[in-house]
Amino acid sequence: MADSGKRKIEVAVGDNETEGHEETLKCRKVISNEPGESNGSASEFLLSGFETKAVLRDSAREKNIFIHGKMADKETVVILEKTPIREESLSELFKNSRLKLEIKNDIYSTYQLQPPPHLNEIKATVVCPATEKHVKKYLRQETFLLEETGEDYRSITLPFIQSQSFSVQWVYNILEKKAEADRIIYEDPDPKVGFVLLPDFKWDQKQLDDLYLIAIIHRRDIKSLRDLTSEHIPLLCNIRKGGEDAIQKRYDVPANKLRVYLHYQPSYYHLHVHFTSLSYDAPGCGVEKAHLLSDVIQNLQADPQYYHSRSLCFPLRAEDSLHGKFKAAGRL
Amino acid sequence: MADSGKRKIEVAVGDNETEGHEETLKCRKVISNEPGESNGSASEFLLSGFETKAVLRDSAREKNIFIHGKMADKETVVILEKTPIREESLSELFKNSRLKLEIKNDIYSTYQLQPPPHLNEIKATVVCPATEKHVKKYLRQETFLLEETGEDYRSITLPFIQSQSFSVQWVYNILEKKAEADRIIYEDPDPKVGFVLLPDFKWDQKQLDDLYLIAIIHRRDIKSLRDLTSEHIPLLCNIRKGGEDAIQKRYDVPANKLRVYLHYQPSYYHLHVHFTSLSYDAPGCGVEKAHLLSDVIQNLQADPQYYHSRSLCFPLRAEDSLHGKFKAAGRL
Repeated sequence: MADSGKRKIEVAVGDNETEGHEETLKCRKVISNEPGESNGSASEFLLSGFETKAVLRDSAREKNIFIHGKMADKETVVILEKTPIREESLSELFKNSRLKLEIKNDIYSTYQLQPPPHLNEIKATVVCPATEKHVKKYLRQETFLLEETGEDYRSITLPFIQSQSFSVQWVYNILEKKAEADRIIYEDPDPKVGFVLLPDFKWDQKQLDDLYLIAIIHRRDIKSLRDLTSEHIPLLCNIRKGGEDAIQKRYDVPANKLRVYLHYQPSYYHLHVHFTSLSYDAPGCGVEKAHLLSDVIQNLQADPQYYHSRSLCFPLRAEDSLHGKFKAAGRL
Repeated sequence: MADSGKRKIEVAVGDNETEGHEETLKCRKVISNEPGESNGSASEFLLSGFETKAVLRDSAREKNIFIHGKMADKETVVILEKTPIREESLSELFKNSRLKLEIKNDIYSTYQLQPPPHLNEIKATVVCPATEKHVKKYLRQETFLLEETGEDYRSITLPFIQSQSFSVQWVYNILEKKAEADRIIYEDPDPKVGFVLLPDFKWDQKQLDDLYLIAIIHRRDIKSLRDLTSEHIPLLCNIRKGGEDAIQKRYDVPANKLRVYLHYQPSYYHLHVHFTSLSYDAPGCGVEKAHLLSDVIQNLQADPQYYHSRSLCFPLRAEDSLHGKFKAAGRL
């Protein structure tokens, strides 16, 4: 959950990789607010002294690994992830890579390719010194599906949210152009129905494959889906239309190639909407967490109090504080 | 769509990798049956003469790419995929990789790591000569999100379903115990609210990680979500309860570790419900296609005609016949 003053990026509970990216993103968030070293410097063999203590999680599907260890006597977390294979690199890759044959049979053969290092980089994020909180955050945890009734929300979740004083100062920094102003690709400044649209940090913008943008509303009185009523339909329709148009204009990606949704629970309690490429299995686009914006609008059109009264499912990890609250209330 | 007599396995439309891996796996199947050249031979720079014609598909999430091209004048398909990062390689990786700093701020820094080639191989599969069938199979079809109104369903989709005479004989074979009877793990034979529960073919049952079962209803008059009314609430509740209890009993997996949902559109028009492990990013569990059973029940309790009247989004591929129908009707 959010710390005071720190950026909280949407995390798909149960999705292996998002948590790690959250810290990566948090790192970049801080970076944009304060000056730091820039691209280009070489730090050869920086990790040569790194000692692995434990692998916190890894994904064979996504080719990444989260490692807890020590570097120069400091607790460190290192996140390694293979990079996507880009079409522009293929020509050089084929020309300059050694191939080691594994199996050949008829028209089929398999090899291990050994490309030159500069064509096959691994993205590395280093958190040093890392706190226990960092380690805990990346550690894969058991996930459960919780069915939260309207009453559960009011008696357990809402008091919990209020008691935690989750800071969204970083969100306000964006809205007030104190941070990341250069990343905003579209803005509607209307105080009631307006929003800013900017690329999510999970997207490096080098390809449209994994396009991912976030629309953050200007008004500050809507924490999540639970606060939405039919009063907010103009806001939601504006986000949908404005976001789709801006993405079409900027990236030439039409609305019917987008997946537009909200998360419940969100990982920060200031309403925001995700715009992801339909062809991208974005973390957190699973039905247990995502709610299509078009569905949300329809639901509120049919029932102004839809999200006030109904039960909503969402995934919760064993270590989440909210999990403890539901357990204490006998709901788990 | 289903062919007469053939088993229709749920395919997650829009799921990038399922089709491609199917062929890759088929290829490996052949290889394991016949002798061929074995590991160890070097085939240095074999692909240096490869000329790329087109990228058939790629995945930034899974770090792979499927390429159609030519090698020595022969049509060739090359599949490249980054390999998972293994714990055993970390020590050497850290010692011997150059790091190029990208951003540094406070305790966070990001780098591009350049490991020695032998520690960072890319898996390559070569199909040569490749047939048109290979090329077509790997080609990702463009997927669009369609918003189907209730009226669209009645005027376009329903006539299409009826005109295709999609055979679900294989479903009836299961229900009548003419096929797969030994795979059924639970049955409620009631003609109105009953169903059979069996493992989906995508699940090899060797681990619970990717648990996947299907509940197929006994009654034959419900094609999909669109046919559901509040009359069917007892049926849906029975599937939910009976399915969860059976899975708990058989596999010791509790209900709160399951994702239980329907697909729209389904790939066969006989109502069935998916039970997957919550920790498994099952193909087709994305919000644009999946509908939580608990949500469906709630929606029908609130509005008996919910699925009759509302608009439903679903992904559609350019080559799908239904796509053609919507296009012809001017809806795309």
